Amino acid sequence: MPNYSMKDRGDRTIYDYLYQCIREDILNGSLPAGERLPSKRLLARDLNISVTSVENAYAQLVLEGYIHGETGRGFFVNDLIEPVPFHEAAKPFDPKALKRQEEPTPAHVLDFKANRSSVEHFPFATWSKLMRTVLSEGNAAVLGTIPYNGLYELRSALSTYLYRHRGIKTDPEQIIIGAGTEYLYSRLLQVLGFNTVMAMEDPGYKKFSEISASQGTVWDYIPMDDEGMRIDYLRNSSANVIHVSPSNHFPTGTVMPITRRLQLLQWAREKPERYIIEDDYDSELRYAGRSVPPMYAIDEGTKVIYMNTFSKSLVPSIRISYMILPPYLLERYQDTMSFYSCTVSAFEQMTLAHFISEGYFSRHINRMKQIYKQKRDLVLDALKKSDLNRISEIREANAGTHFLLHVNTSLTDKQIKAKAEEQRIELALLSDYTRYQGLKSMGTLIINYAGLEPDQVDLAIEIIERVFADDIARSR
Amino acid sequence: MPNYSMKDRGDRTIYDYLYQCIREDILNGSLPAGERLPSKRLLARDLNISVTSVENAYAQLVLEGYIHGETGRGFFVNDLIEPVPFHEAAKPFDPKALKRQEEPTPAHVLDFKANRSSVEHFPFATWSKLMRTVLSEGNAAVLGTIPYNGLYELRSALSTYLYRHRGIKTDPEQIIIGAGTEYLYSRLLQVLGFNTVMAMEDPGYKKFSEISASQGTVWDYIPMDDEGMRIDYLRNSSANVIHVSPSNHFPTGTVMPITRRLQLLQWAREKPERYIIEDDYDSELRYAGRSVPPMYAIDEGTKVIYMNTFSKSLVPSIRISYMILPPYLLERYQDTMSFYSCTVSAFEQMTLAHFISEGYFSRHINRMKQIYKQKRDLVLDALKKSDLNRISEIREANAGTHFLLHVNTSLTDKQIKAKAEEQRIELALLSDYTRYQGLKSMGTLIINYAGLEPDQVDLAIEIIERVFADDIARSR
Repeated sequence: MPNYSMKDRGDRTIYDYLYQCIREDILNGSLPAGERLPSKRLLARDLNISVTSVENAYAQLVLEGYIHGETGRGFFVNDLIEPVPFHEAAKPFDPKALKRQEEPTPAHVLDFKANRSSVEHFPFATWSKLMRTVLSEGNAAVLGTIPYNGLYELRSALSTYLYRHRGIKTDPEQIIIGAGTEYLYSRLLQVLGFNTVMAMEDPGYKKFSEISASQGTVWDYIPMDDEGMRIDYLRNSSANVIHVSPSNHFPTGTVMPITRRLQLLQWAREKPERYIIEDDYDSELRYAGRSVPPMYAIDEGTKVIYMNTFSKSLVPSIRISYMILPPYLLERYQDTMSFYSCTVSAFEQMTLAHFISEGYFSRHINRMKQIYKQKRDLVLDALKKSDLNRISEIREANAGTHFLLHVNTSLTDKQIKAKAEEQRIELALLSDYTRYQGLKSMGTLIINYAGLEPDQVDLAIEIIERVFADDIARSR
Repeated sequence: MPNYSMKDRGDRTIYDYLYQCIREDILNGSLPAGERLPSKRLLARDLNISVTSVENAYAQLVLEGYIHGETGRGFFVNDLIEPVPFHEAAKPFDPKALKRQEEPTPAHVLDFKANRSSVEHFPFATWSKLMRTVLSEGNAAVLGTIPYNGLYELRSALSTYLYRHRGIKTDPEQIIIGAGTEYLYSRLLQVLGFNTVMAMEDPGYKKFSEISASQGTVWDYIPMDDEGMRIDYLRNSSANVIHVSPSNHFPTGTVMPITRRLQLLQWAREKPERYIIEDDYDSELRYAGRSVPPMYAIDEGTKVIYMNTFSKSLVPSIRISYMILPPYLLERYQDTMSFYSCTVSAFEQMTLAHFISEGYFSRHINRMKQIYKQKRDLVLDALKKSDLNRISEIREANAGTHFLLHVNTSLTDKQIKAKAEEQRIELALLSDYTRYQGLKSMGTLIINYAGLEPDQVDLAIEIIERVFADDIARSR
C-alpha cells in the first residue's frame, strides 16, 4: 500500500499530486507490472482525501496508459518496457555542453557594416497608430485565414505602388507575400524544381548560394564585368535560372545597362525553363537621377521573377518580402505550393497595406534618401580633403548606403583586416563577396555610411588613414 | 531632331518626361543605333526647357545604357539587340488567362470545419496594449538584428511556461521560433538531410506529407491502432524519423499510452539517425483531468523534437510557432541553418513574450477551455437526446475542439458528403484523413464544435439527422 505524504504536494491539486506520486513509483519500479492498486475507497481513507481525488488520479493514469482497470477487480499496473539503453551517439542531455550562440563581438569604435539609420528613423508613431487602427477594427481580413499569397489589401496596395514608382504592371494575384526574401527564395527553388541549376553573380550576395546549397540545388558563379553578369560565361554554363540585381548590384553598385538586360532576357527566352530572378533590393535609394526601371518592366510577364523586401527599406525587425511571378510560374506555384500557409502575420500585413496606400511609405523612402545622401556627402567630402584621397578612388557612390573605396596599397586584404581590427573598426572588403576574381577586387573597401553619425565622420577617415599609414607616407 | 510636346508630360518632371520620350524612341527604333543626339544646348532651346533638364535626362539614359557620350563629340544611341522572339512556351502575359484563387465556396448554413471561436475570443485589448508598449519602448532587442532562433525574451518566456505547464525542461537556446509549424518543418527536413525517410500516422495530418513531398523527402504512412502508430509496421518500414501527436492525435483524438511512447522511444534510441517529431498542437485543451505530459518530458533531451504553435491556441492571424531541438540536432542546425534569418517580426515576438510572461496566455487558454467545454457539452447533450443517438457512437470527446461521431449507416462516405452538400453544411469525415484504412474509418464524422454558436446546436443536430434520415427510420 503506497503511503504518500499529502503535506509535500505544494500548490498542486490533491489528485494531480497523487497521480504524480503513483506515476513516479511505476516508472521507478516501486510499483511493478501486474501489481494491483488499492481500491479507491481504501486509498482515500488511508490518505485522508476524497474518493473523487483518487478517482481522478486513477483516471489520468488510465488515460496515459500507466494502469488499467478490470471490471469488478480493480486497477492494475501495466507492463512498461524496460528502461531503454541509450545508443552510443544519444547520451542524455548535458546543458553545459550546449553550444551557445556567438557572443556579441567586442565593441568596435566604428562599424562600417551596420545600418542603424533605418532603425533610428523608423516612423514608430505612424506605424503604431496604423497598427492600433488595424487591431481595433478587427475586421474579417485580419482575423480569417490568410490566403497563401498574403492579404489582398497588401497585394493590391503594392500593385498600385509598384506601377507608380517602378513602372511595374502587375495583377495583385501575381504577388506572393512571405516572411523574408530568404523564405520566398526557398519556396521559389522548390517551384523551379530539382533540375534547376542556379547562376549567381560573382562578386555577389552569398546568402542565395548558401540557401541553394542547403536545399540541394546546384549553382554556379558567373563572373561580372562593368555591365553585370557576363553573358559569354553564362552561355557556357549549364545554368537555367540566374539571380541578378540589375538596378544596384550588391556590393559593387553596378547598374546593368539596357544592352546587357536585353541579352539576358534573350538568353532566358530561348528555352522554356529559363528564368531571371531580379532582386530589386535598395532600388529606391538613388541619389543622382531617377531610380532605374526594373527588368520586370521590360519583360512582358514571361521570364522575370521580381523580388523585394521591406526589411531594408523599412526596418529589419519587420519580416515582409514579396515576389511577383510570371503567369506560368504562378500557375505552377498555385498547383504545388499554395498549400503552404502564408508566413506573415495578418496584423502586420494590414498595417503595411495602410502604410503604403496612405502614402507613408513613399514619404519614408524620400526622407531616408535625404538622410543617406547627406551622410554620403559628408563622408565623400571628408575623404576628398584627407590624405587618403591621394592613394584611393571612389566607385559607385550614387545609390544604396555604401560605396567602394579602392586603395592603391601594398597591403594584402588579410593585412587590411588585421590592421582594421587593431584599430577596433569593423570593415568589409569587396573580396569578402568575391569568389573567383580575387586579384581584381583586392584593396577595395566597402564603406557603408548608413550607421555613421555626422560627428563620427572625421574620426572614421582618420582611422582608415591609420590603416593605410605606410601607403600614405610613401605617396608623399 | 526629336520634337517632344512638353504639354503632355502631366505631373512628371521635365527631365523625367524627356528621358522617357527619348527612351521610348530608342526602344521603338525611331532613334536608331549610332544616331547622334542633339547637343544639350540645342535641344534645350528647341524644347524651351533648361539645359540642366536635358543634362539630367541624358545622364539617366547613360546610366541605364541607352546612350553613351564621346568626349567632344556628343551623345550617341547604343546598339540594342533586336527584339527577342518569344519561345513558344513563353507568350506575353495575358491578364485574363490568370488563374484566380478559388472563390469562397457558396455560404453554408453550418460549417463543422471552421474555428471561429479562437478569433472571436482573441484578447485584442490586451494584445493591443502590449504591442503599444513594445512599439513605444523601441528597445534594442526589438530593433536590432533578430537572432536566427528568435528573440531571447520570447524563448526565455516560453522555456518558463513550458516547464510549468508541460513539464518540459529546456534551455532557451534549444528553442527555435519560426513563422508557422510548416516553416519549421521545412527547415527541420533540411537539417535531417536528404537520406531521411519520414513516417506519418495514418490517419493523420496530411499537410506534413505534402511538405515532405514538395521538398523531395521520402515518406511512408504507418497505420494506427487504438494506442497510436503501430510499432510492428514501423519496424518493417525504412523510416528513420516519425511524426506523431501523442497528446491528442489528429483527427482521432487518441492519447498515446506510456507503453507505446516507450516503445517508440526505444525504437528511436537504437540508431543515431532516428528521431521523433512530437506535434503537441492542441495539447492544452483537455476537458477531463490534466493535460497529458509530452514525450519530450520523458525523453532526456536526445530523440524528441518538440513542436507547437500559437496559430491555434491564440489566433490564426499570428504566425508564430516553435520547435525544441535535442542538443545533437541543435548543433547541426546551428552549423547548417543558422544563416537563415528568423522569419517572425520582432514586434510580435516581443508582444508574445510579454503576453506569456505576464500570465495572459495561461488565462487565455483557461478561458478557451471553458468556452470550448461548454460548447462540447451542449452538442453532446443535444446528440444524446436526438434520434441520432440510437444509430451512433461518440468517440474521443475529452480534448481539442472536435470529436468523432461514428454512425451505423448504409451510406457510403461519398453519399454522406453529397447529402451534407444538399443540406448546405460543411462536413469532414475521418476517411478524408485516412490513406489505407478506408473501411475501418467509414461512416465516421468529425464534429468540430469550435465555430458553433449555442443557438445553432439544435439546428446542427437536426441537419445531421436529415442526412441519416433513412438509417434513423430503419432503426425504429
